[in-house]
Amino acid sequence: MSSRPREHQLPSTTAGDAPAPTAPPAREPTHAERCRTLVAGERRGALSTLAADPAGYPFGSVVSFGLADDGDPLFFVSMMAEHTQNALRDPRASLLLTEPVPEGADPLASGRVTLLGLLAPVDDDERDIARDRYLDANPAASYYIDFGDFTFLRLTVDHIRYVGGYGRMSWVDAADYKVAEPDPLADAAAGIIAHMNDDHADAQVLFCRHFAGLEGTTEASMSAVDRYGFDLVAVSAEHRTPVRIAFAHECTTGDEVRRAMVELVGEARSALA
Amino acid sequence: MSSRPREHQLPSTTAGDAPAPTAPPAREPTHAERCRTLVAGERRGALSTLAADPAGYPFGSVVSFGLADDGDPLFFVSMMAEHTQNALRDPRASLLLTEPVPEGADPLASGRVTLLGLLAPVDDDERDIARDRYLDANPAASYYIDFGDFTFLRLTVDHIRYVGGYGRMSWVDAADYKVAEPDPLADAAAGIIAHMNDDHADAQVLFCRHFAGLEGTTEASMSAVDRYGFDLVAVSAEHRTPVRIAFAHECTTGDEVRRAMVELVGEARSALA
Repeated sequence: MSSRPREHQLPSTTAGDAPAPTAPPAREPTHAERCRTLVAGERRGALSTLAADPAGYPFGSVVSFGLADDGDPLFFVSMMAEHTQNALRDPRASLLLTEPVPEGADPLASGRVTLLGLLAPVDDDERDIARDRYLDANPAASYYIDFGDFTFLRLTVDHIRYVGGYGRMSWVDAADYKVAEPDPLADAAAGIIAHMNDDHADAQVLFCRHFAGLEGTTEASMSAVDRYGFDLVAVSAEHRTPVRIAFAHECTTGDEVRRAMVELVGEARSALA
Repeated sequence: MSSRPREHQLPSTTAGDAPAPTAPPAREPTHAERCRTLVAGERRGALSTLAADPAGYPFGSVVSFGLADDGDPLFFVSMMAEHTQNALRDPRASLLLTEPVPEGADPLASGRVTLLGLLAPVDDDERDIARDRYLDANPAASYYIDFGDFTFLRLTVDHIRYVGGYGRMSWVDAADYKVAEPDPLADAAAGIIAHMNDDHADAQVLFCRHFAGLEGTTEASMSAVDRYGFDLVAVSAEHRTPVRIAFAHECTTGDEVRRAMVELVGEARSALA
């Protein structure tokens, strides 16, 4: 990598200037893991290729994709489509994927990944797996998956830009991305968050008071959960403070999360008793 | 324009091989108008710029935008963001905008526009209008619109690729785009379609029988409406047939559409009586 401009960070309008938590930083997913999780959750993105006319312009188009084991996107495209013709002339390309933006939320606060690489037809011996993976992600394509004027392309990812929202962004090493796992709780996360916020708000306040040392916390809501732990926003009379709390052991199912939460509650209660 | 590959069209799985309507083609929005309408309905898109590292790769990123009178997108971006640095080195860029995809619908059947052009800081005398237009589209940006390390950029559009779904695609002349108007019914369309399908299904069957000569029509649903007319899908025992019906005069409000529908019903009824 050559020199890059320093990362920027907007002043947050939700997190205040509260005292830092007293505990050491709790483990959280690496940016490589966050990228794999985000990519695994999407089926459609914005492909950028290089146009022949107007010459050299970057050209954005909509594509559906499937995923190879190493996280390379696999495409099934018409030979006549602009992006296909562009890639056959010059394979440099990128695929932009964005997390869904909740209704009313700031779209620039949500996560997105740009996978950069070389976009080229898959080798003959990879065609069957490309077909399977594309159909896994896009079952409706079975109607035309065997059309002769379509082809399978693979984006062999060599550079990755991750933006997790304001202030959380980095270039991710492509080798790290290829071996990282999508978070096993990704599909369960929304349900866990809703359940915790609806039924266990008191436990979350307790977590903020005990584990983050924020004794003035009056409300706390969960904003994210992953195999390593979860994110809360602790509200006090003066502040809104982001809090990260780690599980004692990695959790790969909702049931494991439930047991981990029970343990955390027990630990916090006995400490504060 | 140099030579381009011919346009491609997937065989439709919804429209059958019904006889062609007997009437001459009904007026519909030009692709330039469809582009202006689609662009006017979006606030966020995928920007493609040219990266310095990896050199010359097209780089996709998420951007919010406002619109100049001529349909050029206006951006408010951090000086430190990748896309800003890319544009300052090489202004060639494109902005991809996509219509929302209805739940369960085929994402590749929805409309999208790629606006290609040169992306550069706005002139000093355009800064106030850029600021106003950006804030019109992105009111939440008022919290940081006066930050010093941000700048306004304009994409001066010089080429346009439009894809309205399978088989409806073209390169649109940039001069046509700049003078085209967004459809005045764009905001009202969803309400008109719901009302017609819920309460006037019989009238729509009548339209298909009379104006499109599809006498075997048993059901008909509206899929789109614009200032020039509307699209129906006529269902018979054998076929599903797309039908376009023009208004006698352009309609710019829902009230004008209502009056036009009443006239069309009267015309069809007296002809079939």
